[in-house]
Amino acid sequence: MKRNREIPNPTTTAIKELILTRGLRPGDPMPTEAELMETLGVSRSNVREAVRTLVALDILEVRHGTGTFVGQLSLRPLVEGMVFRGVLSPGPDHTSLREVIEVRTGLDLSLAPRIVERLAGQESADLRSCVDEMTTLAARNEPFGEPDRRFHLLLAQRLGNGLYGQLVAAFFDIHGAVAPSLGVAAQQDLDRTAAAHARLLDAAIAGDLDRYRAAVLDHYEPLLRVLDTTETALLDPAKGA
Amino acid sequence: MKRNREIPNPTTTAIKELILTRGLRPGDPMPTEAELMETLGVSRSNVREAVRTLVALDILEVRHGTGTFVGQLSLRPLVEGMVFRGVLSPGPDHTSLREVIEVRTGLDLSLAPRIVERLAGQESADLRSCVDEMTTLAARNEPFGEPDRRFHLLLAQRLGNGLYGQLVAAFFDIHGAVAPSLGVAAQQDLDRTAAAHARLLDAAIAGDLDRYRAAVLDHYEPLLRVLDTTETALLDPAKGA
Repeated sequence: MKRNREIPNPTTTAIKELILTRGLRPGDPMPTEAELMETLGVSRSNVREAVRTLVALDILEVRHGTGTFVGQLSLRPLVEGMVFRGVLSPGPDHTSLREVIEVRTGLDLSLAPRIVERLAGQESADLRSCVDEMTTLAARNEPFGEPDRRFHLLLAQRLGNGLYGQLVAAFFDIHGAVAPSLGVAAQQDLDRTAAAHARLLDAAIAGDLDRYRAAVLDHYEPLLRVLDTTETALLDPAKGA
Repeated sequence: MKRNREIPNPTTTAIKELILTRGLRPGDPMPTEAELMETLGVSRSNVREAVRTLVALDILEVRHGTGTFVGQLSLRPLVEGMVFRGVLSPGPDHTSLREVIEVRTGLDLSLAPRIVERLAGQESADLRSCVDEMTTLAARNEPFGEPDRRFHLLLAQRLGNGLYGQLVAAFFDIHGAVAPSLGVAAQQDLDRTAAAHARLLDAAIAGDLDRYRAAVLDHYEPLLRVLDTTETALLDPAKGA
C-alpha cells in the first residue's frame, strides 16, 4: 500500500499547535478568525482554508452564529471516507462491503473473551431491551438499525475502551450507509438477525465463549448472504432473488 | 457516545455525486474549477471550500501544477485525527495510547486464526527478512519502525482484505506518532520486541494458534510497560525509569 501523506498545510499545523500550547480541550472556544490571522501572521483566506480542513477532520467544529470550537476528534471522517469508498467501488462482488463485514466480525471476535467475562452470570437490562426491541420490530417487518447499533455500542462500552466503541459504531454506520444500495433485507433475515442478537446476549450471560463466537458468525451470516444473492443476480439474472 | 454528524455542505455532496455519476475512479482527473462552477452552478469560493474539505478526507487530491484528481480514499484522515487526539489528550495514564494498543492487539488477535492457517507449513521469505532486519537493528540499538510496519502489513495482506491491511497500518502509524512523546524505548525492549516478531512468525509457520496468540500479547508487552513506567514516573518521580 502506498503511504499516502499529504504535504501538511503550515496554517493547519500552526492551528493544531495553538490548540496544544493553550491546552484547549474538545468543545472549548477557539480564538476568532481575526485573532488567528494576527497570532499566526497569515491571511484570512489561509485561516479559512485551514479551518475548513480541520473541520473536515473533526479537529475543529464551526457552530453557525456562535463561532469555532475545538472538535470532538471523532471517527466521523473515517465514516465519511469509507462510505464514499463503499459507494464508489461496489464491484461485482461487493468487495468493499465484504471487507467492512469482515472487519466488523473481526472486531466482535476480538472483543468476545472480555465481553463474556464481563457479562457472565447476570442479566443485562439495557442489552436485553435492545434485543426485545429488535425482535418486536422484526416481527412487524420493520428495520431495527437503532436498537441494533445501541446493542453493539453498549457491548463495546462494557470494555471501558472508548476507541473500541467508536470503531464498532463507525463500522456499523459505514455498513448501514453502504448496504441499502443492495435492497431491503428479507423478512426471514430480520427475524434471524434479531434472534442472533438474543443468542449473543444469552451466550455471554451463560459465560459460554464458544457459543458467543458462534453467535457472532451467525449474526453476520444473513448480511453476507445478501451479498452472495446480489452477486449471483448480477452474474445470472435468472437466478436472482 | 454522541452521534457527531456535521451538516453536509451541498457543494461537497454535489462533487461526490458528480464523481459517482461520471464513474470516476481513484487517480482519475477531476473537471477544472471553472467546469465545476458551471456544472454545479456555484461560486468559485464554494468550489474551493468543498474541494478543501474533500482533500482533507482523501476523497480528492490536489497535485500542485497538475490539477485535482479523485483521491485514494485512504485511512489518512483517520490517522491524522487520531494522532491529534492522542497528542491532545495524553492524560496521566496515557488513556489514548492504551486504547490504541488495545485496538492493535484486538486486530492482531482477530486475524490470528487466518494468519496461522495461511502461513502454516512453509517459510515466508518476505516476513523472515523483516524479522532479520529488526533483529539486526535492535542489536545496534537502532529503532526499526520501517521493517516492523512492513511485517504487520505483509501479515494483513495475506488475508486478501485491503481494509484490514489499511487499518493495521493506520493504527501502527497512530501509535508510532503518539508514542515518541514518551521517550525512546530501552535497549532490552528493542531486543524483546524483535524477538517477539520472530516468535510470531515461527508460531504461524508451525501452525500453532495458541503460541501465535501468546506471541501477539507478548509483542505488545514492552509497549504497555513503557506506559506503566511513565505513569509511575509522573505520579512519583523518584520511582521513574
